[in-house]
Parts: sequence; C-alpha cells; structure tokens
Amino acid sequence: MTATTGRIMAGEMAEQPAVLRRILTEGAPRIREVAERIAAREPRFVLLTARGTSDNAALYAKYLLEVLLGKPCGLTSMSTTTAYGARQDLTDCLVITVSQSGGSPDLVASTRAAREAGAITLAVTNNAASPLAEISEFHIDVLAGEEKALPATKTYTAELLALYLFVEGLRGGDGAGAAAALPELAEQILDRREEVKDLAGRYRFAERMVLTSRGFGYPTAKEAALKLMETSYIPALSYSGADLLHGPLAMVDNVSPVIAIVTDGKGGEALQPVLDRLRDRGADLVVVGPKPQVDAASAGFVLPVDGVREELQPVLEILPLQMLAYEVTIARGQDPDAPRALAKVTETH
Amino acid sequence: MTATTGRIMAGEMAEQPAVLRRILTEGAPRIREVAERIAAREPRFVLLTARGTSDNAALYAKYLLEVLLGKPCGLTSMSTTTAYGARQDLTDCLVITVSQSGGSPDLVASTRAAREAGAITLAVTNNAASPLAEISEFHIDVLAGEEKALPATKTYTAELLALYLFVEGLRGGDGAGAAAALPELAEQILDRREEVKDLAGRYRFAERMVLTSRGFGYPTAKEAALKLMETSYIPALSYSGADLLHGPLAMVDNVSPVIAIVTDGKGGEALQPVLDRLRDRGADLVVVGPKPQVDAASAGFVLPVDGVREELQPVLEILPLQMLAYEVTIARGQDPDAPRALAKVTETH
Repeated sequence: MTATTGRIMAGEMAEQPAVLRRILTEGAPRIREVAERIAAREPRFVLLTARGTSDNAALYAKYLLEVLLGKPCGLTSMSTTTAYGARQDLTDCLVITVSQSGGSPDLVASTRAAREAGAITLAVTNNAASPLAEISEFHIDVLAGEEKALPATKTYTAELLALYLFVEGLRGGDGAGAAAALPELAEQILDRREEVKDLAGRYRFAERMVLTSRGFGYPTAKEAALKLMETSYIPALSYSGADLLHGPLAMVDNVSPVIAIVTDGKGGEALQPVLDRLRDRGADLVVVGPKPQVDAASAGFVLPVDGVREELQPVLEILPLQMLAYEVTIARGQDPDAPRALAKVTETH
Repeated sequence: MTATTGRIMAGEMAEQPAVLRRILTEGAPRIREVAERIAAREPRFVLLTARGTSDNAALYAKYLLEVLLGKPCGLTSMSTTTAYGARQDLTDCLVITVSQSGGSPDLVASTRAAREAGAITLAVTNNAASPLAEISEFHIDVLAGEEKALPATKTYTAELLALYLFVEGLRGGDGAGAAAALPELAEQILDRREEVKDLAGRYRFAERMVLTSRGFGYPTAKEAALKLMETSYIPALSYSGADLLHGPLAMVDNVSPVIAIVTDGKGGEALQPVLDRLRDRGADLVVVGPKPQVDAASAGFVLPVDGVREELQPVLEILPLQMLAYEVTIARGQDPDAPRALAKVTETH
C-alpha cells in the first residue's frame, strides 16, 4: 500500500454532500419540468432498465413508483430485446434507463428499441452528451461530475436523489423540500470514519457475508453487496428479508455474518421477524439503522434519520456501507482504486 | 450418513419425467382453456409474484412473455403492497402468482390486493385446494403430487412446463407438441448420475461458487444457486453474464469456480464474450450445455437438446444442477433432506 491507495474512491465518497446539494439547487427545477411533461402523457406502466450499481438505483425507483404513485413497474430483462429481438407494444409505457456513463451499447440498443415500440423514454445519466441521453426523448443529468473511481459511489446517491425528485415531480409534490436535510446529514455520516474502521475489523477475515433488508432498504442491501464484492472480493449475498427465509437462511450461521439495513419505517417493521430469527440462530448481526435496532444487534452504525422520510433514507443508508467496503478492502491489504477486471464503461452487447 | 440420507429429495428428482408426462397429458387441455379465457381479456401488462424457487420459475415466464408474446412484464416487489399498503391501478394487468404450496400469507394478501385493484389474477400452484388458488380468478394445477423434500425439485420443472404451456396457449400455439420429447430426455439425463458425481468432486471443498447464463438460461443459474445454497450451504452467487462484467467479475478467479448454463440458441450466443473473458482469466469453468461448449471448458455436462426449442431447454438444464446440489451435499457429509432452518411452507407476511 502506498500513500495514494484508495485516494480516488475516498475523494469521490467525500464529494457526496456537495453533489446532493447541487442536485437540490441546480438540478431540481429541471427534473421537475421533465416530470411534469411526462406526467402529462399519463404513462400507465413503468419499465426500468439498468445494470450494476445503476440497477440498484432503478430498483429504488421501482419502490418509489409503486408505493408513492401506485404504478405497476418492471425491471427490464435486457436480453429479451438485445439477444432475442423481442418486439413489444410499449404504448402507455414509460421506460427509464439509468446509467452513469450513458455509454453501454446494450442500454442504448434497448432504449432505442423501446422508443420505436412506442414508449416514452427517459434517460437518467451522469453525461448529458452521452449516446443514451441523445436517443432518449427525455434526459435527467445527475450532476455528479466525472466519476473516476471504478466502484461507483457519488453517482449512486446522485441517481437515488434525482429519481426521488423525479417521482415526487410526477405526482406534483415538493421533493426538494423533503430532501433538504440530506446533504448535512450525509456530511455527519461521512465524518464518522473511525466507527466504520472498527466495524471493518470484524470482516477482515470473512469468507462470505449476507446483506438483508426489506422495502426501501432492499436496494441498499444489494448495492452494499455489490460494493463489497467489487472492492474486497468477499462473496456478499443480498436477500430481501422475506426471501432469506425461503432457503438461503440454511447458509447463515455463525460463520456467515449478516448486515441488516433497517429503515426507520414500515420496511424496518416488516424486517423484525427476520431479525428475531437471525438472533435466535446466533448469527453475527450488524445493523445499519435506528439506535434501538443497533443496540439489539452484535454491532452497528446508528443512522441519523430523525425527520427523514423512510423513502429518502436509502440516500443516507448506503454511505456507511460504501465506507465499510472501502475500509474492509484497506484492512485486507488491497487497493479500492484497483479492483481486478473492472472497466469503467462496461461494453455489454 | 445413513441408508436414508437424501432419499426424499432423490425420490422426487426421479419423479420428474412422470410429472412432465402428466402435465402434457392431463394438464395441457385445462391449461390451454385457462390461457384462451385470459387471452380473450387482452391483458396488456403482466406482473409475476413469487418467492424462492417459484420466483425463478416466474422469471422464466417473464422471458417467455416478453420474447414470445411481446408483453411488458415485471416481477412484483411484494412489500410495496404487504408492508406499505400501496394501492395500484391494475386495469389491463394480468397478475400471475406462482407458489408450490399456495399457502404463504404474503402471496395470498398480495394476490387479493391485485384482484381488488382490477387485475386478472392467475395462481399457478401444486395445490388446487390452497388459499391462493381459492382467491385467484384463474388457477393452474402443476400436478406434481405432494412435495415432501425441503429443496423443491419436481415442482420447479412442473411450474416451468405449466408456464410454458400457458404462454403458448395465450398465443394460440401448440405447446404440448413442442414439449413432447421432454419426459424422455429428462429420463436420459437423470440416468447419468455417475457423471454428476464426478463433477461434484470438484466442489467438495469449494468455499463459494458463481453461476452465470443469459436469456432463457438465466433463471436456471438462479435456481441452481438457490439449490446449492439450500442443500450444501456453499455461498453460490448467480449473475446474468452481462451483469457479471459490471462488477462481480473482480471476485472470480481460480478460487471461485464458475458454472455457466449455455442454452443452444441466442442466449448461449450472447454469453460467448463472457465465457471467453472467464477463460482468459483462467477461471475454473464448468458448462452445462451443448458438446462444443463443454469441450472448450474445464469440464461439464453435455445436455441432449437436439431439436428442443431454446425456450424449453430450461426444463432440462436444471436437472443435472439439482443432481449436482444433491451429490455435492452428500460428498460434504451432509443430508440433502435435512437442511438447517428450512420449513416447507414459509410464512412471510
């Protein structure tokens, strides 16, 4: 390890409060305008298309659209278009494609096919000049600035907030007001590096991990697992709490540590029976969530979410987990800036 | 280990050719009738609801509906209804709920909510007297007979075939004719236990595994990973080939063996670049698929799919992988009939 180990990823994690502020000030009016124009078209069904980290942001948007708007939603199985040439009737469908680079050929091809099939197309990217932004009818820029680190961090939280503002805009709500506290709270969380370092020590020799949550926290569990795998190479499996009980629980015991993301709200309540079951089995349980939940676990990170709507908590929840992936990787003597095998723009076709 | 170790799971795996035959003879006319009645209602969107093994069958149906019928589809995030009480407008939506037992309370609640929200509801279960079958407008019985083993095997292949016949029925096709060869081919595969035992030896000491595929084979990768985890407790991660390149590839090296399911068709072709990349990295690659693909890999299981449509191959692909989960578990001195922590009807709410 050298003095520059992990510097790129650390720098971009630290930018997140500023990026969130930029979206709330510069980004919000434009996002609201796009939302109003799309709402006027009255889409009845929403399809979300993405890969990797952006796929987890898309899943978050799916929860928002279903819970806040009551719109039936689906995540696209891209190969049905790109490999099988499926021709769908997408009249009345809104197709949202989420991509940091806006450059992956299969996302471009799939979005073009959706537009030809009659869909309203919206690209959510970090590059307004990207091919994806060009071929989509509507575009939202997540304004995160160039992302150089291979593990995406600031573009993930930027995508979450932009998607939240968009969905709130679709129903005519004031998303920016509800989200106003996020940049300050994100700063507070990012300042607690020593706490995360302590947690990271638990996983230095872990051979596998399980992440779980329910509802709005579930995309956080998936994104945290991806971040841990990309940086530390620890096989990290993520399950919704309900799915965990349908099989994979057999794999959880005192050698498979569990990290639970407990939102302060209905998702966290629905996760309770799973947490109880895990405690009964003697699982090593770390909680990211409210203080009482952390106190009842083996260890954890208390999330400051007082007054933050449950649907906005994911923007904060992922921060200690990004930091954890970073610190575990450093603790294992690896460099978070140099994951094996990853290219920044993944060219899947 | 005793003489009865694994006997329940082995017995049910062996029943699969007979179950497939029963569906093609007794089941097909009734499935076709249900499909015709639903087709007459002209659903525009399809939502699929399931958990665990049945969720993998639902994903298979999603590919069928998108590729063969061009219907936009989504998999339900159940907690949006059961935890958050989301009220959706499901006019023109077909909601298909897939469940072996038909007894899980959250599936029943979610399906009831869908029906109240205006959806056409179809339950696909192995129990015509189940609460789920009762509250759904339409029901398809997968006729697999009582399933006693905790790891589901015969109900998975039964669900796949029933869903295939249903989707073919929606478009007025003759599914039963195309599927006629499956029972005989399934028998041939199940007879090759010694080959699978040899493969199982590779994984006796594996600490993790990665399963990958694309297109119609992707649900097989997910189901095989679930089966391996439920029985052997090896953390098994499944990715679509395209997603594997977006991050988790960093985790794959010569200590993470990879099993690729290569369909004979467009999905298999789309997987080629991923297979090439894995070989370049020196990954231990086992292929379930056509002979040339197996020959180019470290080892594999040649699937007899001559003349079997790509969309029907999943019914056969999973068989050697069920057998592999079984044999790996036996090789590790565990009992496939006694997974820790699993209950047959999982009561998630």
